[in-house]
Amino acid sequence: MDLIYWIDLLGTLVFAISGVLAAVDKKFDLVGAFILGMVTAVGGGTLRDVLIGTTPVGWMKDLSYFVIILAALPICYFFKKAILKLRKGIFLFDTIGIGLFTILGLQKTLDVGLSPAIAVLMGIVSATFGGVIRDVLSNEVPLIFRKEIYASACLMGGLIFLLLEYFLKNASINIVLSILVVIVIRYLAVRKNWALPFNPN
Amino acid sequence: MDLIYWIDLLGTLVFAISGVLAAVDKKFDLVGAFILGMVTAVGGGTLRDVLIGTTPVGWMKDLSYFVIILAALPICYFFKKAILKLRKGIFLFDTIGIGLFTILGLQKTLDVGLSPAIAVLMGIVSATFGGVIRDVLSNEVPLIFRKEIYASACLMGGLIFLLLEYFLKNASINIVLSILVVIVIRYLAVRKNWALPFNPN
Amino acid sequence: MDLIYWIDLLGTLVFAISGVLAAVDKKFDLVGAFILGMVTAVGGGTLRDVLIGTTPVGWMKDLSYFVIILAALPICYFFKKAILKLRKGIFLFDTIGIGLFTILGLQKTLDVGLSPAIAVLMGIVSATFGGVIRDVLSNEVPLIFRKEIYASACLMGGLIFLLLEYFLKNASINIVLSILVVIVIRYLAVRKNWALPFNPN
Repeated sequence: MDLIYWIDLLGTLVFAISGVLAAVDKKFDLVGAFILGMVTAVGGGTLRDVLIGTTPVGWMKDLSYFVIILAALPICYFFKKAILKLRKGIFLFDTIGIGLFTILGLQKTLDVGLSPAIAVLMGIVSATFGGVIRDVLSNEVPLIFRKEIYASACLMGGLIFLLLEYFLKNASINIVLSILVVIVIRYLAVRKNWALPFNPN
Repeated sequence: MDLIYWIDLLGTLVFAISGVLAAVDKKFDLVGAFILGMVTAVGGGTLRDVLIGTTPVGWMKDLSYFVIILAALPICYFFKKAILKLRKGIFLFDTIGIGLFTILGLQKTLDVGLSPAIAVLMGIVSATFGGVIRDVLSNEVPLIFRKEIYASACLMGGLIFLLLEYFLKNASINIVLSILVVIVIRYLAVRKNWALPFNPN
Repeated sequence: MDLIYWIDLLGTLVFAISGVLAAVDKKFDLVGAFILGMVTAVGGGTLRDVLIGTTPVGWMKDLSYFVIILAALPICYFFKKAILKLRKGIFLFDTIGIGLFTILGLQKTLDVGLSPAIAVLMGIVSATFGGVIRDVLSNEVPLIFRKEIYASACLMGGLIFLLLEYFLKNASINIVLSILVVIVIRYLAVRKNWALPFNPN
């Protein structure tokens, strides 16, 4: 499935750019910018691979991911302003990437024989923990803890994917439909300012 | 050993509740409360499993742990006040859990063929690093670094367990005796306000 | 290669001392000092081992590392002043250790069949991430993100090592030459106050 591979690389690039830009905000140097780009892009999938025991972790076996992340440095250096202007377009790519990361992480977890519930959890981890590690390394409370951004969208996308797999046997269509669910829910969440407060009294 | 399994689940629940309540203090949302409950409950054992190479990590293979952690959310939501009143009783369950986590982590490390010294260290990691990860994710200096709470109790419990294993061959009795050691030392530590300052001049 | 083993242990001791002294600065207690010494000394190699899948991680299989790290506690307690006076000599041992950690990490990564680019990256991770984890646990932004210290020296040392391996087949000489490169570059970097700012406008 070539298209999925390219979406995966594109999602990696968008995540890496968001990490590098966070490093610029923090006035980190070149080393810090590279590390923050790297962990944002591959941190979630790396954590998943380590937890389910499929090591060496995925990005080590295909250099394309590493090259893509390196490329984020000159891209941010020369096109920072253009990137900030394109936020809306990037939001779309970002959400497509998150959706795909969720489904790929879920599938990889099922492949090692773990249960669907754990697979959905690992899908969400794949999509969200790059950002959590980025925030921890930047000495910030992870954004995802304070403000629902996309964990719920990943959860719904993952559940829909499992449902589709049960009834339909066409993996490509199932992936596309599940990613669409992630995009729609996330779009609605941002648009309607959805929140999930947890305030026991 | 059914009793041990149930104590393990109970310890997991108590740890998860402490993580969720920490999230409430920090005004995290539902996603943050779940993640903090989860890492507090299984973070120590997960780190141990990853370091000694027994992946997929333990809680992935038995959904009971996951269900127990999910259950901590409604429990905290509806019974927060009652929980805070019951602190003394929870302190006891918490200490039993810590003792058991230490011994189970120690045993698991011995089982993969590592040395007793490393096994004791991994026992302590199993019992304490859930709290360390919780504090790091909450952007706090880990409590255990500033104030001796239970690392020493785990250390003594682990050493006693090794000693008992050497002389007695009854695993159940050894576990119960070792956990009793952890409880007594921790009770004394809190009661007498023990501290382990490290101030070279 | 006995000499390499002893340099490895010496590097571990120097790293552990730097972690323990950071804990003293932060007024951590004995438990905190031990943990910070431990993660500084073995954190980088541990992360590398986990990512490339060679678990149980290295220091668990040879107790010398654990004993060396424990020894850092009384050494810091009784000789703190002398250590602070000897900073220049320690800087040298530290740099030798970093150079060796880079090459050993690189070699271990090649040994599991990963590509040279990933091997260099894992060499740098081996040498630098102990410090990153120490800073994260101390609730500080990692020093290496703000100020180039030795990531570039590790990078050059790693590249030189690969080059030498290609032409020369004498591992010992290659290791010594590569470590010399790390020492020279780091010396120049500190002396000339090199920096690697990353400020896209």
